[in-house]
Amino acid sequence: MSRPRPVSGFPEWLPAERIVEQHVTDTLRRVFELHGFASVETRAVEPLDQLLRTGEIDKEVYVLRRLQAEEGEPEPDRAKQLGLHFDLTVPFARYVLENAGKLDFPFRRYQIQKAWRGERPQEGRYREFTQADIDVIGADTLAFHYEAEMAIVMAEVFASLPLPPLRMQINNRRLIEGFYRGLGAEDIPAVLRTVDKMDKIGPDRVRDALVADAGLTAAQAAACLELAEISGTDAKVADQVRSLGVADAGLDQGLEELVAVLDAVQGVAREGFELVADLRIARGLDYYTGTVYETRMQGFEHIGSVCSGGRYDALATDGRTTYPGVGISLGVTRILGPLLSRGGITASRATPTCVLVALPDEDSRDAAVDVASALRSRGIAAEVAPEASKFGKQIKFAERRGIPFVWFLQAADHEVRDIRSGTQLAADPGSWAPPTEDLRPTISAAPPE
Amino acid sequence: MSRPRPVSGFPEWLPAERIVEQHVTDTLRRVFELHGFASVETRAVEPLDQLLRTGEIDKEVYVLRRLQAEEGEPEPDRAKQLGLHFDLTVPFARYVLENAGKLDFPFRRYQIQKAWRGERPQEGRYREFTQADIDVIGADTLAFHYEAEMAIVMAEVFASLPLPPLRMQINNRRLIEGFYRGLGAEDIPAVLRTVDKMDKIGPDRVRDALVADAGLTAAQAAACLELAEISGTDAKVADQVRSLGVADAGLDQGLEELVAVLDAVQGVAREGFELVADLRIARGLDYYTGTVYETRMQGFEHIGSVCSGGRYDALATDGRTTYPGVGISLGVTRILGPLLSRGGITASRATPTCVLVALPDEDSRDAAVDVASALRSRGIAAEVAPEASKFGKQIKFAERRGIPFVWFLQAADHEVRDIRSGTQLAADPGSWAPPTEDLRPTISAAPPE
Repeated sequence: MSRPRPVSGFPEWLPAERIVEQHVTDTLRRVFELHGFASVETRAVEPLDQLLRTGEIDKEVYVLRRLQAEEGEPEPDRAKQLGLHFDLTVPFARYVLENAGKLDFPFRRYQIQKAWRGERPQEGRYREFTQADIDVIGADTLAFHYEAEMAIVMAEVFASLPLPPLRMQINNRRLIEGFYRGLGAEDIPAVLRTVDKMDKIGPDRVRDALVADAGLTAAQAAACLELAEISGTDAKVADQVRSLGVADAGLDQGLEELVAVLDAVQGVAREGFELVADLRIARGLDYYTGTVYETRMQGFEHIGSVCSGGRYDALATDGRTTYPGVGISLGVTRILGPLLSRGGITASRATPTCVLVALPDEDSRDAAVDVASALRSRGIAAEVAPEASKFGKQIKFAERRGIPFVWFLQAADHEVRDIRSGTQLAADPGSWAPPTEDLRPTISAAPPE
Repeated sequence: MSRPRPVSGFPEWLPAERIVEQHVTDTLRRVFELHGFASVETRAVEPLDQLLRTGEIDKEVYVLRRLQAEEGEPEPDRAKQLGLHFDLTVPFARYVLENAGKLDFPFRRYQIQKAWRGERPQEGRYREFTQADIDVIGADTLAFHYEAEMAIVMAEVFASLPLPPLRMQINNRRLIEGFYRGLGAEDIPAVLRTVDKMDKIGPDRVRDALVADAGLTAAQAAACLELAEISGTDAKVADQVRSLGVADAGLDQGLEELVAVLDAVQGVAREGFELVADLRIARGLDYYTGTVYETRMQGFEHIGSVCSGGRYDALATDGRTTYPGVGISLGVTRILGPLLSRGGITASRATPTCVLVALPDEDSRDAAVDVASALRSRGIAAEVAPEASKFGKQIKFAERRGIPFVWFLQAADHEVRDIRSGTQLAADPGSWAPPTEDLRPTISAAPPE
């Protein structure tokens, strides 16, 4: 077999990079579970009729067929064909409906899984990628306070990870829709979709399109642009909006909610994380109805939002019960792909092993295995050298992998060497322990190139 | 949307079941990492030419096509089409070849991931399932002692999980191939394949097929059956084989290795796990060359082996370097599917939450959030009640989810109630801690129905 080559858009990590990824998903899980989110995993596939409910994404779906079926069997109905899920929201909405009778609402779940999209790969965009989602979903009602909680939980995640500074931008759909309504706009979804293109086409073309496509007057369009330019981190944002002189009950409620989220999160704000109300953020997806979130990573703005979501009043319904929710989704691969490829985050070693037990001769293997077992029984990852060889060679074995300690057996005497400092001291396999920071690989940020 | 229905062969778990699954994969990871195995994840897809290298499994592969491509674009070459991997061995062999220059050998890796097979679902057989594999792979050479280590690591895993008793059966391909060679068999692979059918077709039809299809004499066939009947847990197995009077160097080496694995594992044997040499086990796959493993779970023998693998001298080669290895694969879904559906393993609660902070009125939310934060900062999972309501209702909220503790705020006084016993005591959010066994959900075995 000749050397295989990577498949574009399907990233894979070397062991040290994988340790970084594990640290990130472990941190996500720890924070999510501390906040009482229960883990859910859904199958990788959904019937196409579920996946295609929102028409615009159908081109990105990978459809599955059994290889055998290609050579004879008739194809199943398109609706019954299976496709790989392209996010974790559609499968979760289906899971909630399917299991509604067995879940307790409000239901808090997290889901860390791969998703697939057949789109053209580029930096920060992959065909296979890991997402980490949290959602709280209610039966018929869901209190507003969960909209602040989403941002608080993600702020805690970011504070626990060695990432570049992150800036979460929020807005409120009730606010902007109320504003457009108060202005007198008739086709509010069209206004939203147009304003949402600000980053792509710029304010001048947005202004033109608001008049040409969304039916606004020049004055109305100008007011929409004024709204979109407002941003800030506290209640002054609301004053700026009110100074535009538009009156609407939904606008008032939206402003109150926006300020409430800002207040709640500033209380737990941490270095390297900033929450900003940015009234330009619309997030085009139709189903959002309250707070919406987007997040940019400093130095990596070109990869787009790395953590997004929002409040939705009716993502799922079975006719009798409607399930409102609020959720936010962090792009694990989107964050790590660019960082790992630039050395912007690294692990201190490429293996969980903390101690290599050196082997003076093959007859000592049983004794070396006993040492390794004693260390493991106290939570210290250990492996025995693959073969007896000169100690210098065994130290090199550890060095190449970043294993910090090598254990030497000499008859009844045991010594352990920190191969970074060269310090070698007598040690007892029943009681020796490494410094806490060496027990597991540590993850640290390195400045991007 | 009407209530969606499960897709046959793609199991999903409810939150309490998922907590059981997390406990199993956490335990696997902990034991694997303590033994110095590094995590690898490979992409879900491989090019079909990689997946179809072993011809017999092609009917089980799911092939991917972009939905858009179905309506126009010409299909790519079949070899370049992508299929979902059906195990973790083929992708790992490819990963090793692709990254050989960046890995250090012998390379110890574990891999816990989903795999997919388009086969007919039945109990213990799924279309989507999680496997947990460990392998040690060398460059050109790999010492024998790793063949014992595979069984030792899995024995530790089993000892750490509340599963029904497990019985691992091992054999040695060098031994049985040497035996057949020493007997005078000419088509050794044919003999192997025929003996491997013992469980399916029984000894009489195996004897007939050994004569008819594998070209043995009646006496040779009888000797093969005698060999297949031998089993035991210690060196007496070797004596029984030798008493059959067949002489071959490979047979001798295989016997020595078989006894060495038995000896190494008996030293760490634990209740609920048994290692047996069973000379009937052949494992048909051509690439095994040394120790082979299969494992049956008591009461669930009908689902087949739940943990299998073996030594292979040349799973991967790039022409210059050959990569021998030894690996073993545990079927997480195969074990859990039948156990969960019979209530044979359960979690003490359906959420990570240990403490529900009750809410006397909406004005107390900030104070309740502070209590929850204080608990979380000390590793205690806590959530605040969704809304202010009567305490009885809040206790019911906790009861339904299995949350053991409810925290009550009354002005400056805080009390915490163990809702199982009803005991309610004064507590300080800065220092109170639950009993260790309540901190996280606990997993226990329940007798299968």
